[in-house]
Amino acid sequence: MKLGEFELISKLTKKLSCPSEKVVVGIGDDAAVVKLNGSYQIITSDALVENSHYKREWINKFPELYYYLGRKLLSISVSDIASMGGAPEFAIVNLGVSNQSEERLLESLYDGLSDACKDYNVSIIGGDTVASETEFFDSTLTGKSKGYMLRSSAKPKDLVAVTGTFGDSRAGLEILLENRPIDNYLIERFLNPSARVEEGREALSLGVQCGTDVSDGLIFNLYTISESSRVKIEIFSDRIPISEKLISYAGSREKALQYALFGGEDYELIITFPENLLDSVEKTGFKVIGVVSEGSGVFVDGKKVRKIGFDHLRRTE
Amino acid sequence: MKLGEFELISKLTKKLSCPSEKVVVGIGDDAAVVKLNGSYQIITSDALVENSHYKREWINKFPELYYYLGRKLLSISVSDIASMGGAPEFAIVNLGVSNQSEERLLESLYDGLSDACKDYNVSIIGGDTVASETEFFDSTLTGKSKGYMLRSSAKPKDLVAVTGTFGDSRAGLEILLENRPIDNYLIERFLNPSARVEEGREALSLGVQCGTDVSDGLIFNLYTISESSRVKIEIFSDRIPISEKLISYAGSREKALQYALFGGEDYELIITFPENLLDSVEKTGFKVIGVVSEGSGVFVDGKKVRKIGFDHLRRTE
Repeated sequence: MKLGEFELISKLTKKLSCPSEKVVVGIGDDAAVVKLNGSYQIITSDALVENSHYKREWINKFPELYYYLGRKLLSISVSDIASMGGAPEFAIVNLGVSNQSEERLLESLYDGLSDACKDYNVSIIGGDTVASETEFFDSTLTGKSKGYMLRSSAKPKDLVAVTGTFGDSRAGLEILLENRPIDNYLIERFLNPSARVEEGREALSLGVQCGTDVSDGLIFNLYTISESSRVKIEIFSDRIPISEKLISYAGSREKALQYALFGGEDYELIITFPENLLDSVEKTGFKVIGVVSEGSGVFVDGKKVRKIGFDHLRRTE
Repeated sequence: MKLGEFELISKLTKKLSCPSEKVVVGIGDDAAVVKLNGSYQIITSDALVENSHYKREWINKFPELYYYLGRKLLSISVSDIASMGGAPEFAIVNLGVSNQSEERLLESLYDGLSDACKDYNVSIIGGDTVASETEFFDSTLTGKSKGYMLRSSAKPKDLVAVTGTFGDSRAGLEILLENRPIDNYLIERFLNPSARVEEGREALSLGVQCGTDVSDGLIFNLYTISESSRVKIEIFSDRIPISEKLISYAGSREKALQYALFGGEDYELIITFPENLLDSVEKTGFKVIGVVSEGSGVFVDGKKVRKIGFDHLRRTE
């Protein structure tokens, strides 16, 4: 099939109705939000599929691959909940096992899952194990919150801020895919992202209303805010946090910037908020990289950039 | 990998801890139960994988295959919630799309999902779409309830009762897999099972404490009750509900009985309950097929039967 991921999702989800009044946020944000007995439950799901999200041969470059895939499976779902300001709670994990699956690797995967559960205070409560010609794992995670941040809540005059550094993850993927010198820091940034649970919760508690996480790339996810909030977003390239490791890998800050803007799978948070929250937001570890204004599109140093993302479906075509 | 489904699940799930006190029922029953603000939330997940649970070529025998796969994906998860006495509420659906996936078929799948959501009053609130060399779909479903039935609550002197008829689904699968005359009734019993939501809820409200659904076969799932409740279960072959269609397909009631006992994927309910509830339980549509006593094992007409099930992993080895 030649349809891209976002186009396909949009076409299919139009068929689905959300009849319940309890559904506060349905399909289309980082996670869904439902109202349960006065508080909010946040629900999200992610899948990792062999040869789409990882290749078994990477074990040769990074022997702990499956341990980190277990951690990553949970972390990327926790990140969706963090981006709305929630705390993760319960997970269901499904496993598609192929004839080529190795028991010791699956055990390693579950060790990683188990350790990540301890880190994030998540209980795994069930799941289905099925035979599949292609190995896959997926998790559905619930979280709780007294409120939530949305992609669609950015307002003109808001500031734009982010956690962490950008582009490392894409460089780590490149090292695994291509014949480049091993750099465990960059590989781990790809295989073992940290979900920003505390930062998300603190932002929400400060009154921040707009948040998302960077799964598809900084520019791409700024576009998801820009489009759903119907605003223009301008960021400044010298403000974008980039690690020394990435600059050294890419050869220059200018080259590293391309990884940071378009790389994807950083699982850092983006928030937008009114200027009066600046001091308290900065204290929680966010760094301001830009501003929101009336209009549309995403601009870097005054120039409009294209919405280029990290489209898993197209990647395997 | 040569490990059977149940052995593998048991080995892997031992690695996972359930630290939260809110987890009332964790891994091991039909679904998990967590306590949320005074009421219970039931959570379950199921996957359908190409060439493990269905083959695309079945379209030649049954053109509406994908529509019914969409219905089935939801129904089998709803059945888990029904078996505990709950009402389904919210679903997350993940989709693994291969290069061979056809857009019109995925649209048909979502039409089936959408219609099943209306039937069961379920809202689909999100999901992930990923590239996969093997097409798959999975759903995680939440339900609500004021209590729950468990596999482990059967008591000596209880009666054993079931909904519906058994074995049709297995015959339907055989027709799709082998060169046999088409019988749409039997095929639909395999591709379009009905989850017994009302029967489960009524049983729970009458005070029934033990319930499960028949996904792996009547005998197999009686064993799951027998083992987790540490009781002996005896059923009587002339009491087992079998459809006229299946008797006609199999050639005799005796041959049809083998499908009914060991077939799997019936998605009917089994409950056990004290005799004083007999009249009210029968009024809700359950039929008594046996009794519980002290001891162990599952017996048909006084003879112990082996625990033979419908093991998806072994099926593809």
